Amino acid sequence: MLRAGDRAPSLRELSRQQRVSVTTALQSYMWLENRGYLEARARSGFFVRQPFASEIPEPQFEVSSARERSLGVDDIMQDVFSAANDPAAIGFGAGCASPDLFPSRRLNLNLRRIIHRDPLHSSRYDFPPGSEQLRRQIARRASDIEPGVSLRDVVITDGALEAVSLGLRAVARPGDAIAVESPTYFGILANIASMGMKIIEIPTHPQEGMDLNELERAIRKHRIKACVTMPNCHNPLGYVLPDKHKRALADLTGRANVAVIEDDVYGDLASDGTRPRTVKSFDKKGLVILCSSFSKTLPPGFRVGWIIAGRFRAEVERLKFVTTVASNSLGQRVVADFLESGGYDRHLKRLRTAIALQVENVRQAIARYFPAGTRISRPAGGHLLWVELPPKTDSLKLYQAALAEHITILPGPVFCCGNRYRNYIRINCGHKWSEVYERALLKLGRLASEARA
Amino acid sequence: MLRAGDRAPSLRELSRQQRVSVTTALQSYMWLENRGYLEARARSGFFVRQPFASEIPEPQFEVSSARERSLGVDDIMQDVFSAANDPAAIGFGAGCASPDLFPSRRLNLNLRRIIHRDPLHSSRYDFPPGSEQLRRQIARRASDIEPGVSLRDVVITDGALEAVSLGLRAVARPGDAIAVESPTYFGILANIASMGMKIIEIPTHPQEGMDLNELERAIRKHRIKACVTMPNCHNPLGYVLPDKHKRALADLTGRANVAVIEDDVYGDLASDGTRPRTVKSFDKKGLVILCSSFSKTLPPGFRVGWIIAGRFRAEVERLKFVTTVASNSLGQRVVADFLESGGYDRHLKRLRTAIALQVENVRQAIARYFPAGTRISRPAGGHLLWVELPPKTDSLKLYQAALAEHITILPGPVFCCGNRYRNYIRINCGHKWSEVYERALLKLGRLASEARA
Repeated sequence: MLRAGDRAPSLRELSRQQRVSVTTALQSYMWLENRGYLEARARSGFFVRQPFASEIPEPQFEVSSARERSLGVDDIMQDVFSAANDPAAIGFGAGCASPDLFPSRRLNLNLRRIIHRDPLHSSRYDFPPGSEQLRRQIARRASDIEPGVSLRDVVITDGALEAVSLGLRAVARPGDAIAVESPTYFGILANIASMGMKIIEIPTHPQEGMDLNELERAIRKHRIKACVTMPNCHNPLGYVLPDKHKRALADLTGRANVAVIEDDVYGDLASDGTRPRTVKSFDKKGLVILCSSFSKTLPPGFRVGWIIAGRFRAEVERLKFVTTVASNSLGQRVVADFLESGGYDRHLKRLRTAIALQVENVRQAIARYFPAGTRISRPAGGHLLWVELPPKTDSLKLYQAALAEHITILPGPVFCCGNRYRNYIRINCGHKWSEVYERALLKLGRLASEARA
Repeated sequence: MLRAGDRAPSLRELSRQQRVSVTTALQSYMWLENRGYLEARARSGFFVRQPFASEIPEPQFEVSSARERSLGVDDIMQDVFSAANDPAAIGFGAGCASPDLFPSRRLNLNLRRIIHRDPLHSSRYDFPPGSEQLRRQIARRASDIEPGVSLRDVVITDGALEAVSLGLRAVARPGDAIAVESPTYFGILANIASMGMKIIEIPTHPQEGMDLNELERAIRKHRIKACVTMPNCHNPLGYVLPDKHKRALADLTGRANVAVIEDDVYGDLASDGTRPRTVKSFDKKGLVILCSSFSKTLPPGFRVGWIIAGRFRAEVERLKFVTTVASNSLGQRVVADFLESGGYDRHLKRLRTAIALQVENVRQAIARYFPAGTRISRPAGGHLLWVELPPKTDSLKLYQAALAEHITILPGPVFCCGNRYRNYIRINCGHKWSEVYERALLKLGRLASEARA
């Protein structure tokens, strides 16, 4: 048993002991080093570090009961967008990955080929349900986790949020009550509110997801019409819901005849490498509407999303037409070609590893630089961290102080309808790790100690 | 005074008489020939034809009072979309222009240059309000008719219908009453209905637009929150509203504090070559929301639209984010480059002439082949004809009979909420004129005589 400070076996020793090549031994040590378990010392070999990551406590479950709130107007997003276009800004705000993580060279080759072979590529509307070639590829991938999905089940959208929006409009009317996780992605909250639907927040555990007892109570009390959930790589909590919880959610909503809008936008980024199942794969009644996009794994400017809407397919297709008519043709085409070529799966492997590494680097920097008592989520995928600061910290003050230093973060209250999560922030780790980000986190840590409520 | 059958002056005579070059004289004769006023006979010169176009009667004003209806579900659009993807079908249904009318070669050169110079072109979200380069170009063009518009007033959307939808959501809530022209574009009707707003149809004159007395009555009676109007190249009526009517509409709604959603999507296609003014240019209170796109003048698969929302700009920007997050990056970029280069204006000139010619060809074929008593609109721009068939004709039957022959049209009732316009159809003339279309219209004419209610 090795302890912190011990010297790890040399590469040759490890190679002999474990019957692996020296290269494999080196890769293992580098993997451990990247995650902070080992430390490489020049000319001395590898040493065991304080087992850092496992010491970082995760955020607590904030106990609260289901409640209804109206959403306040938000100028914060405005700042975050401006910063996203400002090269001087350090963006821990918007949930974006670094441009150099995308396979732009390959995609540009595909684009050139499309332009060359079909000069009229964009001359027609790709009317709903959208490009057949792309729908075939999406159905093929989806059928791995949900047998029987065909291209006729898929409707192309302008990203995942349009999919969620169309799903909601297909199943609920203005005034209807919609259950959501708390905390959850602010875009979902704002979308529901903008359609005049009522938001019912269900307390959500950092690993086990939505409290199903509370959800059941809310269904009875508020006559919930639909439930929006993000079971895979939750935004902002980061968990991948265990299959038994996914099944339980599908069973509960199925019994109550409540539609489920499942936002799976980060599902391809689950870091353990196996594609997690969806709630939809446990759906027996066609009540689950699966929404996703390629905006977290391929360049988001293509705006290619999709929806598999079960029994609501025809209505979703109609609503897509009467809202945005059709989606961008070239975006659909280039993504379809990339999927068809097999390039997407190869790319995903690299991307997941790169992102997991970035997330771990940010986690460790936060643990190092933030005030004592800070707790950090251990996401099962995606590039978002949910950070609980010491109780008296005011994340809105921290947000403003950081903005003055050209650093964006998202304060906790934007992830709910009320004023909860005052001492929480969400940190995007999509950017390639560098000293610039490390320094920004050092500064953020200092500002956090000063941002008292 | 020349009569039908007379020989027109020779080109040399005309050139001398009118003091223009022989080339100009020839161009005039060709213009007249294209429109059916002259007939060229081999080696004999030009002869005056039966003044064909002016003999075709236009549809009558259907007198009705403002009323409220709920929109029925529509499978017709489904057929029209399927036909749009069916190479064997003759599409007089969807409002599309022929792919070869678009400057694809130039646009593809621009695309290649963008890909070459900025390989990361799509790697970021173009968060609202969207590409600055594109907004600058749109503002520059808009300021020709409405001085003082700046790029800060413009928000990029996924086409014009998303712009209309965002405008409506910014000014009205579910349950609110919205005034629309009758007949009007079915996409607008379906969009309003899908948001749970009430549609109040205002009788609309084929040249003078919405009946303003009826509108004023409706504003008082139904507490109208917004009025959707298409003053330039109306869909389906085809008129360009005279400036005094535009001013009167802006004054009336301004006095009543009613927002105007102005759909100007066909505005660049006014066939007399001068850019018609907008209602927005008469707006003194920031209550007019101008919506448009490049989908009728450039390849619609780019999905590039925009909105100038006056005092509602911030809310529109917020709603854009919470619904579709951002618009496609490459589409915005390629359109912006084309506008910047001046190519768009040169292209518009050619496009307007080509479309006006196609429309006139279709008009004449309809006049030739359709049952006696048929009346055809004389559009001031765009590529849509509104055709009034003899009173007993059932356009839904005609629609179905035509579909069986792989010909799509749009029956009148889809342009209103009730079951009016039973003996009307809309004919798209976006396709390059050819014998195929002539034969299809011959067939359609026969079917129309048989489609009795």
